[in-house]
Amino acid sequence: MSIIRQDLSTKDWTIFAVKRAQRPNDFIKKEEKKVLPKYEPTCPFCRNNEKKTPEELLTINGGKNWSVRVVPNKFPAVDSKDTCGGKIDRHITGPFLSIDGVGSHEVIIESPWHNDNLVKMSIGHVEKVIKAYKSRFIDLSKNPDHQLIIIFKNHGSRAGTSLEHPHSQLVATPFVPGYVRNKMMESQRYYDDLGKCVYCDMIAYELKAKERIIYKSKDYIAYAPYASVVPYNVIVFPRKHQACFAEIMEEDLRSLAKALHATLGKLYYFLKDPDYNFVIDSAPIDQSGNRHYHWHIEILPRLTTRAGFEIGSGMNINSVLPETCAKQLREQKV
Amino acid sequence: MSIIRQDLSTKDWTIFAVKRAQRPNDFIKKEEKKVLPKYEPTCPFCRNNEKKTPEELLTINGGKNWSVRVVPNKFPAVDSKDTCGGKIDRHITGPFLSIDGVGSHEVIIESPWHNDNLVKMSIGHVEKVIKAYKSRFIDLSKNPDHQLIIIFKNHGSRAGTSLEHPHSQLVATPFVPGYVRNKMMESQRYYDDLGKCVYCDMIAYELKAKERIIYKSKDYIAYAPYASVVPYNVIVFPRKHQACFAEIMEEDLRSLAKALHATLGKLYYFLKDPDYNFVIDSAPIDQSGNRHYHWHIEILPRLTTRAGFEIGSGMNINSVLPETCAKQLREQKV
Repeated sequence: MSIIRQDLSTKDWTIFAVKRAQRPNDFIKKEEKKVLPKYEPTCPFCRNNEKKTPEELLTINGGKNWSVRVVPNKFPAVDSKDTCGGKIDRHITGPFLSIDGVGSHEVIIESPWHNDNLVKMSIGHVEKVIKAYKSRFIDLSKNPDHQLIIIFKNHGSRAGTSLEHPHSQLVATPFVPGYVRNKMMESQRYYDDLGKCVYCDMIAYELKAKERIIYKSKDYIAYAPYASVVPYNVIVFPRKHQACFAEIMEEDLRSLAKALHATLGKLYYFLKDPDYNFVIDSAPIDQSGNRHYHWHIEILPRLTTRAGFEIGSGMNINSVLPETCAKQLREQKV
Repeated sequence: MSIIRQDLSTKDWTIFAVKRAQRPNDFIKKEEKKVLPKYEPTCPFCRNNEKKTPEELLTINGGKNWSVRVVPNKFPAVDSKDTCGGKIDRHITGPFLSIDGVGSHEVIIESPWHNDNLVKMSIGHVEKVIKAYKSRFIDLSKNPDHQLIIIFKNHGSRAGTSLEHPHSQLVATPFVPGYVRNKMMESQRYYDDLGKCVYCDMIAYELKAKERIIYKSKDYIAYAPYASVVPYNVIVFPRKHQACFAEIMEEDLRSLAKALHATLGKLYYFLKDPDYNFVIDSAPIDQSGNRHYHWHIEILPRLTTRAGFEIGSGMNINSVLPETCAKQLREQKV
């Protein structure tokens, strides 16, 4: 019999149908990886091609020898030049509602080198990438146009990337979408009922249960969630309670870099460089410091395809239990 | 400036960033289509290979000359042999909840011919496929193990299909997932506020506005929704209020077959056989006859990839306005 597990923090369900399982190594990438050059003349993100991007918003180790560089997205989903000081216009058309697409959409160029990779970088360099995330997050939080900031990475074509140079993105939206509000309400309700953060409770339970843990250090933990939405789904959490990504302390950046580097490394070596997305899920800007939400980095390898059932039900079908994935990744050397 | 539109029925948002637009014909499939044989000896769904599937649950025009055939899914997500008369077991593990994966997972083989296609079939044959959907829907509704029935089709590899023989699937789940419950609650609230079905209101508005309509007949309408989640998103609605797919009358089956055939045909010829999913979104079984929900067939061409932003925010980014898609599809001959 398959078993259907509930995500305690969102109340969403995943069907674990292990009879449908391909063997675990069916998920290991077989196609030959294209070998990338260190420098690609046509790439807008390579060092010495800086003129191909809009003017930079931030560099880490500035000047010509930058190591991380943040620029506005040339094809933004929402645009900071439409700034309106937080007075976002709503429009009614017949029974319908729309909002002006004000906001910010930025690209974090993670390295000057075209063939670089978060897994192959030094931990010091990964720390600089996270430092850039934090700096932009804090800066954009001050703009009253913004209510939610989403930092994410699309790695590989199945994850929706269009440029192969290593980069992540940041979008600041002018309101909080229902999907995020629902998550907030679930954790709020848990807090109101039990007086505790649901994520803190899950972390404490996973530390005790051990079977889904992939990585842990004094400050961070990575585990395969109980109701993993896809095979090899992993979440990285700070062990101490923090609602908002911006609450991360300077002295924790290196420790987070280590956790992210190790977790992505385990996925990289076990699954042979899978396509993946990661997203920093953080509380909305005006809820920084709240007691019920707990920011985290959700990593979703793109090994399977979301199809009609998932679209219609909002549930996922997963053919591998998180305990199986966690054991494999825990044992994987990086 | 981009514009962010709200789906009135779910309160979900889509960002229309037309500056990001690839030109419309960037969506038109360029790859050479594999030419399929009429009969494929290894295919379990081809006529004369009936022994390769579990025993059939239904045939239309039975016997060796069946035209539509329904069989249990050989690798079910939930399984009817785990039947428990509606007494579904819940399990608590630490802070977590799970449910036994009881239910039904069936395959509707749409044609005896390997190279057939809903667009290339006669309308009479499409009617038989819909008849099979309805018959299985009604039959499975009577089983107390089932609370929600989802009928869907995955066409092409980007839509998650694993077998190329034309088929759709049906899954009956032992509870109503939150995603569906939320949709029900939104339409319920609209009904409580305004005394009308939100979908009936949208249909009336679209008939008046005209610009998003793709197909209409006396009984059915297909339009590109105001907050289309992807380019060329189309929904087919019955024009009269019906909460549940099973409420469709025998005399309407042919008219629905015409609407579905025409709509899929327009997508097929305009986008050159795109990969797509469709899902019959229906009220949960115990809400048949309710006044606030309105079943429909949601069609989602798979031309773009859901990436980190969509995963993190639950919003979609769409680079083509529904008015543009609707005009192109309305003018497309079938």
